[in-house]
Amino acid sequence: MSAPGPWNVLCERMAELRALQGAITVLAWDQETHMPANGALARGEQLAVLQGLLHERLSAGALADALAGAEASLRGGVAPEGAPPDAAVVLRAMRFDRDRAVKVPARLVRELAELQSAALVAWRAAREESDFGGFAPFLEKLLALRREQAQAFGVPEGGEVYDALLEGYEPGMRVARLEPLFARLTGWLAPLVERLASAPPPHDPFTGGHFDDEAQWALSLELLDSMGFDRQSGRLDESIHPFTLSPDPGDVRLTTHVHEELPLSSIFSTLHEGGHGLFEQGLPSAHRRDPLGMVISMGLHESQSRLWENQVGRSLPFWRGFAPRMATRFPQLAGLSAEALHRAANRVARTPVRVEADEVTYNLHVALRFELELGMLRGDLRVHDIPGAWNDGLQRLLGLAPVSDAQGALQDIHWAWGDLGYFPTYTLGNLYAAQLFAAAQRDLSGLDGDLAAGRFLGLRDWLREKVHRHGRALPAEEIVRRATGRGLDDEAFRAYLDAKYRALDPG
Amino acid sequence: MSAPGPWNVLCERMAELRALQGAITVLAWDQETHMPANGALARGEQLAVLQGLLHERLSAGALADALAGAEASLRGGVAPEGAPPDAAVVLRAMRFDRDRAVKVPARLVRELAELQSAALVAWRAAREESDFGGFAPFLEKLLALRREQAQAFGVPEGGEVYDALLEGYEPGMRVARLEPLFARLTGWLAPLVERLASAPPPHDPFTGGHFDDEAQWALSLELLDSMGFDRQSGRLDESIHPFTLSPDPGDVRLTTHVHEELPLSSIFSTLHEGGHGLFEQGLPSAHRRDPLGMVISMGLHESQSRLWENQVGRSLPFWRGFAPRMATRFPQLAGLSAEALHRAANRVARTPVRVEADEVTYNLHVALRFELELGMLRGDLRVHDIPGAWNDGLQRLLGLAPVSDAQGALQDIHWAWGDLGYFPTYTLGNLYAAQLFAAAQRDLSGLDGDLAAGRFLGLRDWLREKVHRHGRALPAEEIVRRATGRGLDDEAFRAYLDAKYRALDPG
Repeated sequence: MSAPGPWNVLCERMAELRALQGAITVLAWDQETHMPANGALARGEQLAVLQGLLHERLSAGALADALAGAEASLRGGVAPEGAPPDAAVVLRAMRFDRDRAVKVPARLVRELAELQSAALVAWRAAREESDFGGFAPFLEKLLALRREQAQAFGVPEGGEVYDALLEGYEPGMRVARLEPLFARLTGWLAPLVERLASAPPPHDPFTGGHFDDEAQWALSLELLDSMGFDRQSGRLDESIHPFTLSPDPGDVRLTTHVHEELPLSSIFSTLHEGGHGLFEQGLPSAHRRDPLGMVISMGLHESQSRLWENQVGRSLPFWRGFAPRMATRFPQLAGLSAEALHRAANRVARTPVRVEADEVTYNLHVALRFELELGMLRGDLRVHDIPGAWNDGLQRLLGLAPVSDAQGALQDIHWAWGDLGYFPTYTLGNLYAAQLFAAAQRDLSGLDGDLAAGRFLGLRDWLREKVHRHGRALPAEEIVRRATGRGLDDEAFRAYLDAKYRALDPG
Repeated sequence: MSAPGPWNVLCERMAELRALQGAITVLAWDQETHMPANGALARGEQLAVLQGLLHERLSAGALADALAGAEASLRGGVAPEGAPPDAAVVLRAMRFDRDRAVKVPARLVRELAELQSAALVAWRAAREESDFGGFAPFLEKLLALRREQAQAFGVPEGGEVYDALLEGYEPGMRVARLEPLFARLTGWLAPLVERLASAPPPHDPFTGGHFDDEAQWALSLELLDSMGFDRQSGRLDESIHPFTLSPDPGDVRLTTHVHEELPLSSIFSTLHEGGHGLFEQGLPSAHRRDPLGMVISMGLHESQSRLWENQVGRSLPFWRGFAPRMATRFPQLAGLSAEALHRAANRVARTPVRVEADEVTYNLHVALRFELELGMLRGDLRVHDIPGAWNDGLQRLLGLAPVSDAQGALQDIHWAWGDLGYFPTYTLGNLYAAQLFAAAQRDLSGLDGDLAAGRFLGLRDWLREKVHRHGRALPAEEIVRRATGRGLDDEAFRAYLDAKYRALDPG
């Protein structure tokens, strides 16, 4: 038996990396869903060890050799033995991951992992006390390490430090594109918020009601099933903050939360996570053991969750179909019209808390965080000045009065995780969602009727074909361009909001 | 800052190994409890990669150097810097694990892992068809690989191949001790079974009843709480076959099963797994990052589960306390006396299925498996002759007629896992349980009264002090000797059964 060729050697290495990532993902899921309280110490150690091993294997000479061998034979015009037709695309993704990992010294990986654990604890305590000062020293250290990491990655040609971090979440995206985009967005969103949020709030049909946990749960599962989420290849659990983690396309794990007084909360969380989950289940199974079988960007991932949550779940057709299904579970809602529920699901109100924000104000929250992150990484904003800058931004962007640290700069977990550069992907997701849904409406005749009939599989299949199946084979914007005919822009999103609120609020 | 000394280097290595083992344990737990069906493929890959990494790290030169460095400084009479007083004991355990691992080539580790996955699938299918022939080729290959592994481990001085495998489950135990032990046991068990199983069966008070799942579940949790199992450091889930897996003393995971017609089944499973769980929670927390903080032997582990299941759970004092608690959950049992429930819980009947066997017949099942395994490893019994040998043994040991393969040689999962040499630890557990409980009765005045009052913490604390806290610091038999004054023997078990059935069946 001859020695395995370079392609097969590489495949074994890639499969090992994916298996390690999968194991890490299962441990992270368990940590947030089932782990008993006193398991936290050991879990932190397990995750740190596996992250360290992943970085070690990604930077190892054995992978470098296998990759170089496969690249060389491909450059010579000879596809490596056993390699598939898209071998070049696999190699490009693997090269990207390896080059990025190898730039970061193992010491920095370990220091970051340890600091993240400590920062998370400090953030929780500081939020409890509503005292940013308790978290600030940790954020300062995280900022220093992330800056060091960004320098290690290397600042892209003509870019800035922030870009090096952004690249880890949204490959190819740059501050130079985001800044004008946010300026344009906030330019037209602010007056829209001004108009909509000052109108008298619609009647809340749920006030004072009690909505049985189990009935909400059953409704969530029913929704997932009708979206075409395969529960043989995934599951739904409960957690405080809903999330999706996927060790494998055959093992996609969603969570939702259930509040007995707020029945819409579980519905929108389930639609949101279900959107993420469909993306994960729709990734190319031929690439489940190599880096192509992953989602290319966080913005594109978020486009799928937001599309199901908002373009579908906050549409009138959806409520025409869903109002009777909801009334079956909650007889006290039997008298409510689809229009009334649709209106309740689309209330616009200024709130200082991002995760409670409606579709119109949401991106203003993201704009604020982007501004502050940029200030931190450019050295224009010192960490201890963040609460003041936060309140200034809240006033300027949302017209809100100053808030406590707990309701302000400590509300999000992201910085405690060390995630700097992540927030903009939420807005990219919102914009891509509007673009993709507009294209789906063009391509799928009768889509509104399908939604009203609870028939979601046509839309799922369209998304699978246009988005999910590409994995990391194409840049996110190229996927959107091919699906919609246009690159990233805010026009579809503006048209979507205009149409919705013209109909809801003709005044 | 000076370089860390050999002890600290070693500690880091040991902690990495424990973290990897912990990660593997979480993945294995999830596989049997929550993983969706289509996650199996990726899970197999994740576990194989982690097992491979564990073996790699255990055999690595870096560990060898750190271990040798720490050993050398200790031999020189100088405790390594930073080392605890029991450093020598830690080093001995680490040396045992490393030397054992390094003897097995990585190729064999991988081949065994792959074969186990395939064998498990084949075993499930063969059992479904009740056709041993479908599993035989896999068992043959497993036998060959395990034999190769045993040769690699090395046959102990004066021992045989089986001993090398047994050593992995029950360090220090030898066939030369087990054979006469089983001969003696079967010698006095056979006539006891003959007498008890031929008596008319006691009235089964549960026949035709329906026992609500949730009430059974609540009763299980109540039992665990009263045993002192800490649910902040563990949890209970449902699975087809109950088991305990513990990634850490702060994260001990039990499962039980609930059958609506058989309320005793969940009670005894919970007591059994609760016993394992208390052992895991009682391991020395100072050693949770090194190999001392583990259970020394499978026999000793089983002694804890069986003690709670049988010596406690099948005793009359227990039922005096538990009958009213059970009647609270199941009012239809309110008229039943503690004596009647105790009698129902101690019915002796010949069954061909080990996991359904009572305390008296159970060890005869183990004796049969031990005989067959010994035959296989000595080369006296060929795999395809197993079903015949099984039926012969069933007749000889239990007086039962031949059974189908599904009810016979395919009933246990152990061989499909590649576990050869494991079965005897069940009997060791039964014997140790009887010895330990007799000692607890001597040491704890009023134990019967406590059990009747549902007060289990005194017993738990005695076991913690005498057994759990030792971890791997002492051999299993030495732990039992110190607790009871005697090494392994079958006298306490015989006295226990004699007393029980004299009281139950004075005829």
